[in-house]
Amino acid sequence: MSLFRLIPDRPDVVQDQNKPDEKGTFREWLYITIFQATTTAGKLFDIGLFVLILSNIALLMLESVQGISATYAGLFKILDIVFLIIFSIEYLLRLYCVRSARQYASSFYGIIDLLAILPSYMEFFYPQWHVFMIVRSFRLLRIFRIFRMVRFLDESRVLMFALIRGFRKIIVFLFFVLLLAIFMGSLMYIVEFQHNDGFHSIPQSIYWAIVTITTVGYGDVAPVTAAGKIIASFIMILGYSIIAVPTGIMSASVIYEEKRNRGKPCPHCQATGHTADAVYCKSCGQKLKE
Amino acid sequence: MSLFRLIPDRPDVVQDQNKPDEKGTFREWLYITIFQATTTAGKLFDIGLFVLILSNIALLMLESVQGISATYAGLFKILDIVFLIIFSIEYLLRLYCVRSARQYASSFYGIIDLLAILPSYMEFFYPQWHVFMIVRSFRLLRIFRIFRMVRFLDESRVLMFALIRGFRKIIVFLFFVLLLAIFMGSLMYIVEFQHNDGFHSIPQSIYWAIVTITTVGYGDVAPVTAAGKIIASFIMILGYSIIAVPTGIMSASVIYEEKRNRGKPCPHCQATGHTADAVYCKSCGQKLKE
Amino acid sequence: MSLFRLIPDRPDVVQDQNKPDEKGTFREWLYITIFQATTTAGKLFDIGLFVLILSNIALLMLESVQGISATYAGLFKILDIVFLIIFSIEYLLRLYCVRSARQYASSFYGIIDLLAILPSYMEFFYPQWHVFMIVRSFRLLRIFRIFRMVRFLDESRVLMFALIRGFRKIIVFLFFVLLLAIFMGSLMYIVEFQHNDGFHSIPQSIYWAIVTITTVGYGDVAPVTAAGKIIASFIMILGYSIIAVPTGIMSASVIYEEKRNRGKPCPHCQATGHTADAVYCKSCGQKLKE
Amino acid sequence: MSLFRLIPDRPDVVQDQNKPDEKGTFREWLYITIFQATTTAGKLFDIGLFVLILSNIALLMLESVQGISATYAGLFKILDIVFLIIFSIEYLLRLYCVRSARQYASSFYGIIDLLAILPSYMEFFYPQWHVFMIVRSFRLLRIFRIFRMVRFLDESRVLMFALIRGFRKIIVFLFFVLLLAIFMGSLMYIVEFQHNDGFHSIPQSIYWAIVTITTVGYGDVAPVTAAGKIIASFIMILGYSIIAVPTGIMSASVIYEEKRNRGKPCPHCQATGHTADAVYCKSCGQKLKE
Repeated sequence: MSLFRLIPDRPDVVQDQNKPDEKGTFREWLYITIFQATTTAGKLFDIGLFVLILSNIALLMLESVQGISATYAGLFKILDIVFLIIFSIEYLLRLYCVRSARQYASSFYGIIDLLAILPSYMEFFYPQWHVFMIVRSFRLLRIFRIFRMVRFLDESRVLMFALIRGFRKIIVFLFFVLLLAIFMGSLMYIVEFQHNDGFHSIPQSIYWAIVTITTVGYGDVAPVTAAGKIIASFIMILGYSIIAVPTGIMSASVIYEEKRNRGKPCPHCQATGHTADAVYCKSCGQKLKE
Repeated sequence: MSLFRLIPDRPDVVQDQNKPDEKGTFREWLYITIFQATTTAGKLFDIGLFVLILSNIALLMLESVQGISATYAGLFKILDIVFLIIFSIEYLLRLYCVRSARQYASSFYGIIDLLAILPSYMEFFYPQWHVFMIVRSFRLLRIFRIFRMVRFLDESRVLMFALIRGFRKIIVFLFFVLLLAIFMGSLMYIVEFQHNDGFHSIPQSIYWAIVTITTVGYGDVAPVTAAGKIIASFIMILGYSIIAVPTGIMSASVIYEEKRNRGKPCPHCQATGHTADAVYCKSCGQKLKE
Repeated sequence: MSLFRLIPDRPDVVQDQNKPDEKGTFREWLYITIFQATTTAGKLFDIGLFVLILSNIALLMLESVQGISATYAGLFKILDIVFLIIFSIEYLLRLYCVRSARQYASSFYGIIDLLAILPSYMEFFYPQWHVFMIVRSFRLLRIFRIFRMVRFLDESRVLMFALIRGFRKIIVFLFFVLLLAIFMGSLMYIVEFQHNDGFHSIPQSIYWAIVTITTVGYGDVAPVTAAGKIIASFIMILGYSIIAVPTGIMSASVIYEEKRNRGKPCPHCQATGHTADAVYCKSCGQKLKE
Repeated sequence: MSLFRLIPDRPDVVQDQNKPDEKGTFREWLYITIFQATTTAGKLFDIGLFVLILSNIALLMLESVQGISATYAGLFKILDIVFLIIFSIEYLLRLYCVRSARQYASSFYGIIDLLAILPSYMEFFYPQWHVFMIVRSFRLLRIFRIFRMVRFLDESRVLMFALIRGFRKIIVFLFFVLLLAIFMGSLMYIVEFQHNDGFHSIPQSIYWAIVTITTVGYGDVAPVTAAGKIIASFIMILGYSIIAVPTGIMSASVIYEEKRNRGKPCPHCQATGHTADAVYCKSCGQKLKE
């Protein structure tokens, strides 16, 4: 399944392949510091980068608050430029210290690193384009890079494999939910639109149906007729029940993934995923335990 | 269980039985194009139909938006007629190219195909009947037909079998939820109706109880008395807990269905529960498939 | 565990023990008709009772709707009396035809049958007591009696056993949720009460915390300060995550109950609940299959 | 994993280690009464303490209700002092009767006992500090101590171990939810902020995204533009689906914990997975316990 290729491999394993050949040079020291977390310098670099990214995201948020942004407009502008310079230098250093700059630039993390600085340069030329603001929040994705330090990575890999296993079933389920919302929304439009401004069109009614099926229930649109309330009650109970479907799918997926991870590999062919009561390897047919 | 018969069989298998006998004729070519997706023409036909259905549904939605519908009233009328003609021709072609027109007309997809065009003809004679609008959204169901192209069909079959396995338990559960809503709604009516316009009758209070148990929570009706808030808190915690019941049922169902699908028993020792990638039986060590 | 005794035994088995001794008399025929559903008369009786109970509940609801109740006040009064007479006769007949009237009167269904008519008599003497209205909705519980006809009974027994197995864990969980609500409610009171009328006291804040943790979210009380919104976000994410706990408990319960039911009983000692791969009976130690 | 150390050990086992050496003295009698629940006096002490804690918490809540607090200000002040004296005496008695006062004072329950009385003394000196009010609600935590009486303790231990097993996966999941909320909030800010006062800044939009993803849906902020409603619908369906992830994790955890608890391996053949009521091994047919 091609989806499995979306999961980035463990960075400590993959990026080593891009380590420069020279030993003991500044370039190799730089590579170890920036890309690995085995030395003290490397750990300090990771922590510094983590703090920088978080404070940059906090800055982005504060800039959008009217009161604050008006008072400190000048300060924000300067800080924006400072962050841009730091992240640009970091990107250039990464390009410099890897064996193949092209391989890094086209890798998963390389693209993320570029997306973290590119929008700021674009804003320099087209300052009125607000859409760049959102692209800047791609910087958050860089936090995943820091995660190689901690052991959470394995957990997120198990979770992602479980998600991918249940993915197609959940897509089918969501398609049914969407059909249901279109259907129920159209029905509610017929019933309510003459008595209730909230159901003024079918798209609006479908929006209401999604708000209701997912049990969000803003209350900005709510039925007023008796018939509408009966249909709404039916939709709510339906939404309340069918939430069990994706949950069942995911439970089965996680249980399966955990079982698969649990088994010791076969001593003869290294195949994993044997069930707890297996006596013979399911791949090579030899005894699992002597 | 009769419910299992509701699941349409895989269309590529069933519809072949309705293939005309003549080989190499235009009628056979038409059958393969329309009902199968093995040839290039068949795939193009499926994609075209998919686009047509989606744009027709989008048209139906836009027609209900007041501002748009007033401006383009003439255009909408013409497009409605164009879509009706296309879908009518398609239905007639389907009737023509199958071996037995009656068998097709009375099949699951045959009825859906008819329901997709019939309401438009009815609206021609009774234009003020808004109810036909909703029947027209049956056209959405035709999208399932296109699904034979993709591999999602197997997934939806597993899901449906899991749903059917848990169906009776979920019905019993929903019946309890309904009883609970009637009970709690009546109780809240007694407590609140003198202080709160929102609880003006028992049916309205039951509507509120359903909104609360399902955790939708519009907020159009909310308790105002201290006693009402305490009872409401109790209902919320109850609703929050019992959502676990259908979820548990579905989890058990999906896990059971997946296990059932996963493996044929070993031909030598009849042991079951082999994982999907097993080559040798984990109990007797012999080959699973010759 | 004493809770298991709350589940009424299968009525067709238990009530037979209360069958009168005389054969072929009117009293025996009455018993079979009223308490069993094996004869045509018995089935008709059950269906009639089902219709009567439902229409009585519908009447109760309509009586609470102001507009309707004012117009048809006289009709409602007459119908109330008619239903009371019918249910009273039914209760007397039940008392008459069982072997031991006292045993029936003190059984689960006997008490429900009495509660279905008693409040109406009380209302006769104290017509202003609205609280009787809610007691009258106990009549709904009688519908369970009709369920012996259908096969849903087995399903509800499995569900109830699963609920009871997970009961103590869910009580512990709900206790934690309540502690969390009290804690978070107190915290939000400190933060918000000077800026927001909605958080005017700790009990009110706890009510808000329960509305939020259970993801109901009426919106009648919502945080307005920045600090309040941050705490509220934290509570929401917490509530969203911990809903997984009762669900996990119930999933484990249902899966366990289904497995337990699935096994064939031991041919030697009739013990059930053997796992799928059991070779020997876990109770008597003899081979399960010859 | 260090988290496991957070779970307090069974108090009846641990606290016995702190039992004074002298036999038959008043100090030993006091220890047994206060710390254990085996004697009648000990049970009475536990029940009395339970009632005191609950009534104290109720008092704290009532004090925050404006109307009541103004009328009974004097009474509340006296009751506060009475409770403080009782809890202080209890703390001193606990310190007196254990073998090592320091060991008790630094234990989990010792700190909780201190936190239950300390804030009241602080309020004596700084009466305007409202923050102490919340610290006083720590008293609730003392209720757990009473739980050693009942058998719920085992249940909560199983639950906590299941929570800890799934803890890291749920943290990773929550981190993804937070990233999603930041991303979707920023996106909605771009789309809505010119048409909707509710989305006046990115932090506010992130608050809205969390309200929506967790399906709480207050409705204090809701999209008004067509594009905003489409994005909101997408977020809702996403939130509705991904709630399945923590649920799947917890289901797997609870099922694993229950299996682990269910059975010691057979002493003859080491087979595991026996149900709780098994007397004979299901694999070799020999007695499980001698």
